[in-house]
Amino acid sequence: MYQGGSDGFLGPRDPIPLGDPAWGCDMEGEIAVITDDVPMGVTPEAAAGHIKLIMLVNDVSLRGLIPGELAKGFGFFQSKPASAFSPVAVTPDELGDAWQNNLIHLPMQVDYRGEPFGRVEAAEDATFTLADLVAHAAKTRNLGAGTIIGSGTVSKKDADGGSGKPVSEGGRGYSCIAEIRMIETIADGAPKTPFMRLGDRVRIDMVDADGQSIFGSIDQDVVPA
Amino acid sequence: MYQGGSDGFLGPRDPIPLGDPAWGCDMEGEIAVITDDVPMGVTPEAAAGHIKLIMLVNDVSLRGLIPGELAKGFGFFQSKPASAFSPVAVTPDELGDAWQNNLIHLPMQVDYRGEPFGRVEAAEDATFTLADLVAHAAKTRNLGAGTIIGSGTVSKKDADGGSGKPVSEGGRGYSCIAEIRMIETIADGAPKTPFMRLGDRVRIDMVDADGQSIFGSIDQDVVPA
Repeated sequence: MYQGGSDGFLGPRDPIPLGDPAWGCDMEGEIAVITDDVPMGVTPEAAAGHIKLIMLVNDVSLRGLIPGELAKGFGFFQSKPASAFSPVAVTPDELGDAWQNNLIHLPMQVDYRGEPFGRVEAAEDATFTLADLVAHAAKTRNLGAGTIIGSGTVSKKDADGGSGKPVSEGGRGYSCIAEIRMIETIADGAPKTPFMRLGDRVRIDMVDADGQSIFGSIDQDVVPA
Repeated sequence: MYQGGSDGFLGPRDPIPLGDPAWGCDMEGEIAVITDDVPMGVTPEAAAGHIKLIMLVNDVSLRGLIPGELAKGFGFFQSKPASAFSPVAVTPDELGDAWQNNLIHLPMQVDYRGEPFGRVEAAEDATFTLADLVAHAAKTRNLGAGTIIGSGTVSKKDADGGSGKPVSEGGRGYSCIAEIRMIETIADGAPKTPFMRLGDRVRIDMVDADGQSIFGSIDQDVVPA
């Protein structure tokens, strides 16, 4: 878990300002929850009751800045610029049967450059539930009401084969570019999908059983900073 | 630079709640600045003008949790619980000649367990100015008005000798326990000063040329969480 900025976010349709394309801009499609006041040391079981709202997030990463920052040992900072959230956050009961075990049992829809890029089931291979993550965050501190906890990029475990293939090849695809680049590197020795270039557009959405958008979509393109 | 929590702080005289003494609670005496709105990509020169208020901070660390977190590569999270700030923040002009080159040219006074523990000059061996740090934070994002940027623990470069000796031996001492433990380890092969135990008290202050406290003191003891 890393700690992100909380002073400034991008609107769901705001462009992503990029200072330098060499920074390697990547989208990350995630679920995020908003808590009420959470006491230090809360158990995962009790943490579940502190999840009051759920939304989508584009947890933008600057992949080109990550190696240098991780080498310093202090984790991400410049490599995690402002995030964008979905237009709407919903209460857990609004998700009905799709909200079980503190996960959303629906696919994360990521379209990139106008094409389906990811349709990964958000619960299927989740390593931690959202309640686990709230409890992890609260181990040594109280969390104030309004705290946002993200799930990490929605991903499949078997991303190197089967349903982990690109959507265009009948797979479930990916929720970030770094993952397809890793698959390409394993398959071909080098990545071929570039990170986001100026003008590239990402759309992140999730629909209910009737095909209706639950949170509204995040829809952003990349512009010069 | 790491990103700390912003949803909950400790008051300057609040106790530090500690879930487990094995977490290795340590104080860190630092300077912090509060900015107005800072645009992405600001230069260090321009960042100086965005420093609107200055204060002290006890940037509490849980040293026992740091190795496990750093091993994961994502940096500090549980190891950086809530911080405490001085009762008063002052504008740069209030510091007069003590504020030069975006540093405070006065000693950081840290008393620990009722004894002088640190009297380290806050500017002398600073690696970065506060303006450098604001610019670093703003490289890939805008900073909202009210952003707090800390200096990192005030420290001497020659901490293994000369003026870097403990205050009780005529040196300038230290602003955190980890540093004296490092000195002890170099000298004797093992640290002998324990981290903060329940009931241990730390006082962090800074006085002007007339001996008057500039920010009011941070004064905290450790209590069970």
